Amino acid sequence: MKKIINSTEQVVDEMIEGMLRAYPEHLKRAPNTKRTVMFTKAPVEGKVGIITGGGSGHLPLFLGYTGQGLLDGTAVGDVFSSPSSKEIFELTKAVNAGKGVLYLYGNYGGDIMNFDMAADMAEDEDIDTATSIGCDDVASAPKGQEDKRRGIAGIFYAYKIAGAKAAQGASLEEVKQWADSAIAATRTMGVALSPCTIPAAGEPTFTIGDEEMEIGMGIHGEKGVQRGKLKTADEITQIMTEKVIEDLPFNKGDEVSVLVNGLGATAPMELYILFRKVSMILEDKGICVCRSYVGEYATSMEMKGASITLFRLDDDLKRLLDAPSYSPFLLQQLQKA
Amino acid sequence: MKKIINSTEQVVDEMIEGMLRAYPEHLKRAPNTKRTVMFTKAPVEGKVGIITGGGSGHLPLFLGYTGQGLLDGTAVGDVFSSPSSKEIFELTKAVNAGKGVLYLYGNYGGDIMNFDMAADMAEDEDIDTATSIGCDDVASAPKGQEDKRRGIAGIFYAYKIAGAKAAQGASLEEVKQWADSAIAATRTMGVALSPCTIPAAGEPTFTIGDEEMEIGMGIHGEKGVQRGKLKTADEITQIMTEKVIEDLPFNKGDEVSVLVNGLGATAPMELYILFRKVSMILEDKGICVCRSYVGEYATSMEMKGASITLFRLDDDLKRLLDAPSYSPFLLQQLQKA
Repeated sequence: MKKIINSTEQVVDEMIEGMLRAYPEHLKRAPNTKRTVMFTKAPVEGKVGIITGGGSGHLPLFLGYTGQGLLDGTAVGDVFSSPSSKEIFELTKAVNAGKGVLYLYGNYGGDIMNFDMAADMAEDEDIDTATSIGCDDVASAPKGQEDKRRGIAGIFYAYKIAGAKAAQGASLEEVKQWADSAIAATRTMGVALSPCTIPAAGEPTFTIGDEEMEIGMGIHGEKGVQRGKLKTADEITQIMTEKVIEDLPFNKGDEVSVLVNGLGATAPMELYILFRKVSMILEDKGICVCRSYVGEYATSMEMKGASITLFRLDDDLKRLLDAPSYSPFLLQQLQKA
Repeated sequence: MKKIINSTEQVVDEMIEGMLRAYPEHLKRAPNTKRTVMFTKAPVEGKVGIITGGGSGHLPLFLGYTGQGLLDGTAVGDVFSSPSSKEIFELTKAVNAGKGVLYLYGNYGGDIMNFDMAADMAEDEDIDTATSIGCDDVASAPKGQEDKRRGIAGIFYAYKIAGAKAAQGASLEEVKQWADSAIAATRTMGVALSPCTIPAAGEPTFTIGDEEMEIGMGIHGEKGVQRGKLKTADEITQIMTEKVIEDLPFNKGDEVSVLVNGLGATAPMELYILFRKVSMILEDKGICVCRSYVGEYATSMEMKGASITLFRLDDDLKRLLDAPSYSPFLLQQLQKA
């Protein structure tokens, strides 16, 4: 295991500390918590709070989307492990401005259990909560069983849409409905070329041959749908994009946003080569690409691979997707943090 | 070599095509060129043009900084190879608004040769050019021989400062002076844990043991200053930060911006663990961190490693660093592209 770390036990706490030191004007811990990050401006009067959470090792998921027009806070678990219900509850109290709090996170058993427990604790203190669960990975369960699918990079769109709606002053019920609409319009498929290593485990999460790839693998190394010899970028893209398109399905005349996501160790050059082919396939099918995102949106530490997400837009979703938003983690590059 | 590509010959052209397809409103090729990218709004009346260029494989360097308040265009070479003088010249003509064009790029022989040839061609057509060369890598030549040092991630600051100054309507001479000031106030040191593979070569650029690291290695695998057993994040950070601090030197009371850059395969979590320690070291020395940047700013494809850059600020540089800027590659994540 070749990582730049101090000790396998300290990676999560030191990551959080690094982030708080990098953006002190924007991020802080919620009171009475150790592993949360909350936007310094939260709670915002008249605004529904939105929080997420999940295991560490997926940056910019989940912490990185804490900011303006996005999430009010994130509960942080150990590497690939759920955050605690107690910390989720404390974060809920901290971001609640009286209009309630939406829990928006990915479809993993431990996360569901802990967010549900936090919701019960919140109820005892008369804080309204609602839950929307990202489940965009078409490889993880067949069509018709969408509620069994894992959530991966496509949750980015739900964050943007729900964040924009909350910023407009919508009610908890409305914000949840828009998050659910975004999730329903999002489909993703991934491919892995190499594993990653959980620091505390010290061993790669799976093994794969030097010339092999696995299509549909999850971001924790969950089994995919097709393992075989590494194909060309265009062939891989064709397989993944077709599966995504036929699942929703996306149809001729649709307007979509495309997200090509790197899993950690994939060179940006390769992501643009993937995007090129996605764009060509959609063009051939008469599907219009309105908004493009290419980069790292949901990683699996140093895993090599990528995912392709399509998000079907209508005029309302387009406006919400374009609404101004800001997160120091993502937008620090060229703006004052 | 495990990469998501179609053919080793096509990677650069397909990367450019992918990028132009992703951001058609913002990026286009300059007339009569194949491997350039220019901002669609360039040339801007009354503004000095700024162009950069260099080998491919370093995204977001160099293409990714083409945009508003940054660069007007980029000439793109093959992987780790210089762009052609002919294409640099064509790009120069395309971005020139009559106030001349600054060439701002890193200190590599092939790039210097081709940019100088392009400058001669521009002179023949009465286009003024000036040149500023990034040379921030303290590992690549001793103090006193700064002009022999390689340019790496720190050129980001020169892009920001020169871009902001040009946007204010400054003259070519002024823009060059500010770029040079930014370069003079910037110092970087890197560490590599693994090599990368040039597609056409098919073999890693160097070999390194499973438990080894090399401090000071260049972004093309140029020899560093210290190879040894992989140390902890804090130890590595201590060595690199001390070398950077003593070189300028940065002194008690200075205000700085810190850039912790990932070389490609380094998990963001590790970059924040590095940042944490840089911030602690600077705090101990009474050096104030005013602006923080953590992420991938200059990669070496799938190389594992990182670099630490410090940039000394004064009030003028701070204002210019904070000036609004926009590049679809870097800021697409959360804003309308």
